[in-house]
Amino acid sequence: MEITKELLLEVQKRIQPYIHRTPVLKSRLLNKISGAELWFKCENFQRMGAFKMRGAANAIISLSDEQRSKGVVTHSSGNFAQALSLAAKSLDVLAYIVMPDTAPEVKKAAVRSYGGKITECPSTLKDREETAARIERETGATFIHPSNDLDVILGQGTAAMELIEDHPDLDYVITPVGGGGLIAGSALAVRYFGRNCKCIGAEPMEADDAWRSMQSGKIETNETANTIADGLKTNLGDINFPIITENVEKIVRVTEEEIRSALRLIWERMKIIVEPSSAVALAAVIREKEDFKNKKVGIIISGGNVDLQRLPF
Amino acid sequence: MEITKELLLEVQKRIQPYIHRTPVLKSRLLNKISGAELWFKCENFQRMGAFKMRGAANAIISLSDEQRSKGVVTHSSGNFAQALSLAAKSLDVLAYIVMPDTAPEVKKAAVRSYGGKITECPSTLKDREETAARIERETGATFIHPSNDLDVILGQGTAAMELIEDHPDLDYVITPVGGGGLIAGSALAVRYFGRNCKCIGAEPMEADDAWRSMQSGKIETNETANTIADGLKTNLGDINFPIITENVEKIVRVTEEEIRSALRLIWERMKIIVEPSSAVALAAVIREKEDFKNKKVGIIISGGNVDLQRLPF
Repeated sequence: MEITKELLLEVQKRIQPYIHRTPVLKSRLLNKISGAELWFKCENFQRMGAFKMRGAANAIISLSDEQRSKGVVTHSSGNFAQALSLAAKSLDVLAYIVMPDTAPEVKKAAVRSYGGKITECPSTLKDREETAARIERETGATFIHPSNDLDVILGQGTAAMELIEDHPDLDYVITPVGGGGLIAGSALAVRYFGRNCKCIGAEPMEADDAWRSMQSGKIETNETANTIADGLKTNLGDINFPIITENVEKIVRVTEEEIRSALRLIWERMKIIVEPSSAVALAAVIREKEDFKNKKVGIIISGGNVDLQRLPF
Repeated sequence: MEITKELLLEVQKRIQPYIHRTPVLKSRLLNKISGAELWFKCENFQRMGAFKMRGAANAIISLSDEQRSKGVVTHSSGNFAQALSLAAKSLDVLAYIVMPDTAPEVKKAAVRSYGGKITECPSTLKDREETAARIERETGATFIHPSNDLDVILGQGTAAMELIEDHPDLDYVITPVGGGGLIAGSALAVRYFGRNCKCIGAEPMEADDAWRSMQSGKIETNETANTIADGLKTNLGDINFPIITENVEKIVRVTEEEIRSALRLIWERMKIIVEPSSAVALAAVIREKEDFKNKKVGIIISGGNVDLQRLPF
């Protein structure tokens, strides 16, 4: 599949009935604090509470009728499990979700509420992959990877496309970097629709695999992942990594303290509920203040699914 | 001062440089839960985090140059203290804020950060009134009441004006009822700009002074005020009460459990941070589901200033 401007526009059009066009917020106060002009693309207001809905919808829409009739399968304990379940339900497709038996009940309940069919397994990656493979064999369902899948990547890119449509003169689009789907999709959006715009990734120092991958030129893994940004612990994949190396300007790393402080600013000053992972991008802008001074910066707020009983404040 | 459509439009125009035009959000899920079509006017995104900024700005703008030069004074430990401070600062006017010495340090710090000049006093109403009166005498500052002041009322009404401008076909506008400024202003906006639209108030059973005032035809006070909606404990005043009796359809009372549950829905499903008082309006729609079924309902989210360390969940 050749990536073109037309393809991106086609993706945006076809997922539109299944997603919200999320609002873009600004904050006078955060502009003052950062010295930049910030535009927050609020994917925490997306259906099921995160940008992942976009990629999941596009991946399912891209299947043949034959494939759709047999369902989709993924392994995830996070937002992608909910996204694939809800997208599948909206498109009348069955979703098999492999979850570690250690996953919190609240996350299982969310997947179930969106119609996902859960299979539990031990929490190692090997067990999760094997269980998903077994479901593929037994049901004929198509495996959809949460981030290392071109249709998923293109779907995730539509958030940045909308943001650039609303604010065509952005100098930067910044996203957090986890498995690489959001940053790869956003970088493509910036490349095809930005005007002198650059795409930058933000990552916790405690899980800086993408930063190290950019340095070494090959996919690195995390040795530690002691971060409150629990959505960002995964590694890049062989499909998104080349897109990232070619189209992402740089990765900015931030400390846990910087993430916590940015998270607090967003909650207290913008009055929106965002995941710790979403605060990483703002933390990067504040950390590298001088570079972003007086620039127009679009920040993708990735999601808002947090456990209100366990806030990191 | 005669209240006319033109006056309301003039107020909206003159406060515009000092306030945000706040976004209106909807939630597919809350529509499903309530059976109504809900539009949330997000005054939690307003400057200083609450609708009170509107009334404070209008009150100060309405003063003569002579009055402005001597400053304004109020007594409040809540949002109005911050609103008057920030509005005064924006208009280059001095604000004297009388606060009970028992007020939390975080609230005093907020007032100070907006440039308000705090005078502390014992926390009885008598002490607060006397202290404010003394400052009036000593400085010549003009006393601005948080809710029982026509300029304040007209300013608060601009949130509903904007909401109706965005959604002219609303059947209802619902607001929480505290001191009566927001509901009175909203009722005027509905009267002059709504099309077959009605204004409804929502109140905790634990602080149902407005409901009882509507029954008895005179201003009643609260005997208990054991509610998490701490912004709604105050009574109506002689300026807003006649506006309310003439223009408000009814007051719906809700239980603490209903408030808590509506608050949780807003936080968890809409991903926005709102004060418990703001949830009272949604609680009323859910309580009287049958009456609002398939109706277009505008809900004023009054504010989002909460202490993240002390959440009511």
